Amino acid sequence: MRSVSVVGIGQLPVEKASALSLRQLGAEVVRRAMEDAGVDRVDALFASNMLADELQGQKHIASLIAEEANLLGVEALQVRAAMAGGAAAIRVAFLSVASGESNLAIAVGVEKMSEGAATPALSKALDAARDVPDGATMISKNAELKRMYLDRYNVPEDGLVNFPVVAHDNARSNPFALYKKTISQSEVQSSRVIHAPLRLFECSPICDGAAAVVLAPSEQSRALNPEPVQLLASSVVTDRFRIDDREDPLQLEAAHRSSHDAYRKANINREDIHLFEVHDAFSIMACLQLEAAGFAEPGQGWRLAVDDEIRLQGKIPITTMGGLKARGHPIGATGLYQVCEIVLQLTGHAGKNQVRNAEIGMMQSVGGAASTVLTHIFGV
Amino acid sequence: MRSVSVVGIGQLPVEKASALSLRQLGAEVVRRAMEDAGVDRVDALFASNMLADELQGQKHIASLIAEEANLLGVEALQVRAAMAGGAAAIRVAFLSVASGESNLAIAVGVEKMSEGAATPALSKALDAARDVPDGATMISKNAELKRMYLDRYNVPEDGLVNFPVVAHDNARSNPFALYKKTISQSEVQSSRVIHAPLRLFECSPICDGAAAVVLAPSEQSRALNPEPVQLLASSVVTDRFRIDDREDPLQLEAAHRSSHDAYRKANINREDIHLFEVHDAFSIMACLQLEAAGFAEPGQGWRLAVDDEIRLQGKIPITTMGGLKARGHPIGATGLYQVCEIVLQLTGHAGKNQVRNAEIGMMQSVGGAASTVLTHIFGV
Repeated sequence: MRSVSVVGIGQLPVEKASALSLRQLGAEVVRRAMEDAGVDRVDALFASNMLADELQGQKHIASLIAEEANLLGVEALQVRAAMAGGAAAIRVAFLSVASGESNLAIAVGVEKMSEGAATPALSKALDAARDVPDGATMISKNAELKRMYLDRYNVPEDGLVNFPVVAHDNARSNPFALYKKTISQSEVQSSRVIHAPLRLFECSPICDGAAAVVLAPSEQSRALNPEPVQLLASSVVTDRFRIDDREDPLQLEAAHRSSHDAYRKANINREDIHLFEVHDAFSIMACLQLEAAGFAEPGQGWRLAVDDEIRLQGKIPITTMGGLKARGHPIGATGLYQVCEIVLQLTGHAGKNQVRNAEIGMMQSVGGAASTVLTHIFGV
Repeated sequence: MRSVSVVGIGQLPVEKASALSLRQLGAEVVRRAMEDAGVDRVDALFASNMLADELQGQKHIASLIAEEANLLGVEALQVRAAMAGGAAAIRVAFLSVASGESNLAIAVGVEKMSEGAATPALSKALDAARDVPDGATMISKNAELKRMYLDRYNVPEDGLVNFPVVAHDNARSNPFALYKKTISQSEVQSSRVIHAPLRLFECSPICDGAAAVVLAPSEQSRALNPEPVQLLASSVVTDRFRIDDREDPLQLEAAHRSSHDAYRKANINREDIHLFEVHDAFSIMACLQLEAAGFAEPGQGWRLAVDDEIRLQGKIPITTMGGLKARGHPIGATGLYQVCEIVLQLTGHAGKNQVRNAEIGMMQSVGGAASTVLTHIFGV
């Protein structure tokens, strides 16, 4: 199997409502990533999007974006894994280059949530026959997890507030982030209760965005980009579909197994990881991921936040460019934003957000109620 | 790159309305394909489905099917290319095994069109901003193509009737086919006009179905199955998204380029192909594909049907087990049915439908208005 590297990245600022159409958003970041890689052609395009079926009445988006990006004729497929779709597109682009079927593959994620009712469409990541009829939404399921977590481990009600606080602090100096203002612990804790015990400032926002990355064989990567970033590991693991069917809903089994599968594939230890882009769609999810990946014992993940160990200078920096909470979570694009951010970190281009001596970065994407988890590890 | 072979197939009979749920349909064919391959575990599952977002209110179907099939923890992703999604799932399963990331990958397609309004959801494969607002549907776009074809080449109004006639003849002895009765040329030509000049019997039916195939490295395939079928070529090509934006809408450029890309990859000539499973969602599409793939000159594809050259004993047998028209076209599953049928043909298990001395079979899947075309070639 060929080693694969990132040779180009492209991002657009996350916005509440973009003036660009879905296809324009996609095409623009494809152009930016290709320009960054210095190529005017790719062999394959793998697109991620979760909600266009409902919000834009549009399927078949990979071919649509390919044409808009002037890539006439190119292979173009859509890849999905609910909210982890961006990482799924990276996964398949990796398979394409690793297999030798393509030499240059682009993974592009795009979402335009401003054009309709996102929440009911997002709920389709849960079980339509057994969860949704009872009123379940992504919000209610994460509220359940938070309630369970606070109760079992005797965590104070404000035990998770530093997750959004740190995300907002880091977003301030990310030109692609949606939110540029800091929030205080008390602002988080006094924000509106969305679904008890979940508060507004613990939830990632509805927004528009797009990002893309170009992958190439590692042995050809330096000819394209003086600072290629190697994809050291790609892993996908699934779990029981419903939270309620799991032995212990607070143990994210798919996240645990996917993390450790990725450590093995990358031939590294957890301690080698300098930053970890988590899927903080809800603060509780970031906390549970830290535990699943081994950065904290069960019930102790929140302490990493309390102790400021998740900050840029901490033991395990997370959401280093704002995370889903403050950079924004345009669903299908999120995984691609995370790769772009890790590439900036590992190449020393993260500016004020730079994690010192960052050489290995991990990202983890969560689909539905952690029924599908993808982990990718990058290194220089 | 590792050579890849099919080592197991699984199909369910296509029905107007299945008693099984979407996930049950998917899980059942996964079990059948794994049983056929003699394995109780796969490394990865790639699922195809086009309409569950609308018809079942369900996204995230790969993980859902994996759990229902008792494949707890397995990698599971969904792959899409509008109506060519089944072939797209095969494509990615191929990349997975070819790259070495998996040793056993299953591609599964499932569609349950009986649970809602399929037609508007299908139209989302067209341009939601520029086609659909003018009332375009898959039916209207294929009607346009047929009108253009009849006019330009002076083809008689009944010039295409043998496409559905042959499909129905072949479906009769396929236990998985929806329709088991033959239809006559005059029945086709007197069937209701759906959208002039398109008649009901030229259109594939709304139906439910599922099919799956297991892929493995060719070098390990004989240990699993005494009759493996090698995947000789896999190709994806896109075209301008809208028919109206193409220089010549009757030249299916993506089908042409994908066919020839596949011939090159398989290192064969068109003349080496013993059967061709076309995407006869509409008869005109089968006709245009025969031309695009080089089996007839432009404007001459219909003559292959008139001259009975598309029958099992003809020059280029198509729809050998009933095709989309008569086996049925449960959208996301169709490409997988086609692989199953080609495997039966190439291993000599096609019964009354057997094409003599069949050693190389091709299938071609068409997404939207031929904006995405996938071609796969198999051989023994």
